[in-house]
Amino acid sequence: MDSIGLVLFPRFTGLDLVGPHEVLSRTSATCSIVAATRDPVISDRGLVVVPDATFDDAPDFDVLVVPGGPGQTPAMDDDVLIAFIRERASAARFVLGVCTGTLLLARAGILNGREATTHWLALEALEALGARAVRERVVWSDHIVTGAGVSAGIDAALELVARMYGDETSERIQLAIEYDPAPPHDVGHPDKARPALVAALRSKSRFQ
Amino acid sequence: MDSIGLVLFPRFTGLDLVGPHEVLSRTSATCSIVAATRDPVISDRGLVVVPDATFDDAPDFDVLVVPGGPGQTPAMDDDVLIAFIRERASAARFVLGVCTGTLLLARAGILNGREATTHWLALEALEALGARAVRERVVWSDHIVTGAGVSAGIDAALELVARMYGDETSERIQLAIEYDPAPPHDVGHPDKARPALVAALRSKSRFQ
Repeated sequence: MDSIGLVLFPRFTGLDLVGPHEVLSRTSATCSIVAATRDPVISDRGLVVVPDATFDDAPDFDVLVVPGGPGQTPAMDDDVLIAFIRERASAARFVLGVCTGTLLLARAGILNGREATTHWLALEALEALGARAVRERVVWSDHIVTGAGVSAGIDAALELVARMYGDETSERIQLAIEYDPAPPHDVGHPDKARPALVAALRSKSRFQ
Repeated sequence: MDSIGLVLFPRFTGLDLVGPHEVLSRTSATCSIVAATRDPVISDRGLVVVPDATFDDAPDFDVLVVPGGPGQTPAMDDDVLIAFIRERASAARFVLGVCTGTLLLARAGILNGREATTHWLALEALEALGARAVRERVVWSDHIVTGAGVSAGIDAALELVARMYGDETSERIQLAIEYDPAPPHDVGHPDKARPALVAALRSKSRFQ
């Protein structure tokens, strides 16, 4: 049975973690949420999640998942976290980076020269870290799959399940979570949104 | 500033809760996750969330959100939970039911004769509880909005934000979470999936 580890750090973004967790935990794999300690970890929006394991006592992982969020910025200088990601991503059969979690993978040195994606606001930052930033929703580079901003973790995780366990398992999960999306607006990507809306978000971004 | 309460109970489905939380917490509103006690609550797939408030000490809510999950079945007989939902849903300006959370709203008596939706496997159960089950992804009945299975909470929450705060706020959030979905398969609704896949999920459902 496969073991999947999802890395948690303060001010992660809730859906970055829970989208992939919802999908991956519906396979035969065991999912563990792992952080520096077992203390509850608070998301950027106040969601409080309790880890299952710590960096010191985590089991071996077949798959490592790294979510993003505003806490990614200070996490870039967290040597213990980055070393854990480097070690576990290097040992894993598959790696999934979501949103700005991809920047943590790049910081850990495992995306050098590889194609990868991240939140649309962070593509330049990803490129500056040595990856080849691709403006797509889900990007594969060998065994490493990365997703764009926040909600893209759902799509990337369904693709990962298809790769690991076959299309039928992925399809079963997609139907079980009734993932037949119907966003009320067609503005989920900067190419589709009004320039003023894109500019408003860019002006508030930590990536300048 | 609006106050939004999200109800938590054992064996909730993670994405039912976190999809709407991710969207709603990006407004000016304050979000509280409320449960019977402040003890951590475990989802059906092992996600452990710590509530912010209890049924006894929760603040007034302008919006009540009720997620679903396998724990909905025992929750139907949890008189304290159902009474809390009845009281708070009756007092709220808006109510959002996601997935089988809609059955809890129906059990609390606030969907009598109203159009509503739920997970595709639970539509008959919803009808049996006195609502008029509608096979759509997001259904409005006056101030009550309901979403279909699991992932539909994201769409329903974006619609609720548009209703409460205007399209521009909802569009900003959709772009911020890069919600430009690209599911790998087109099987997210039973009308689109192979009959064998639908039958396989139905045979394992608690709604027979």
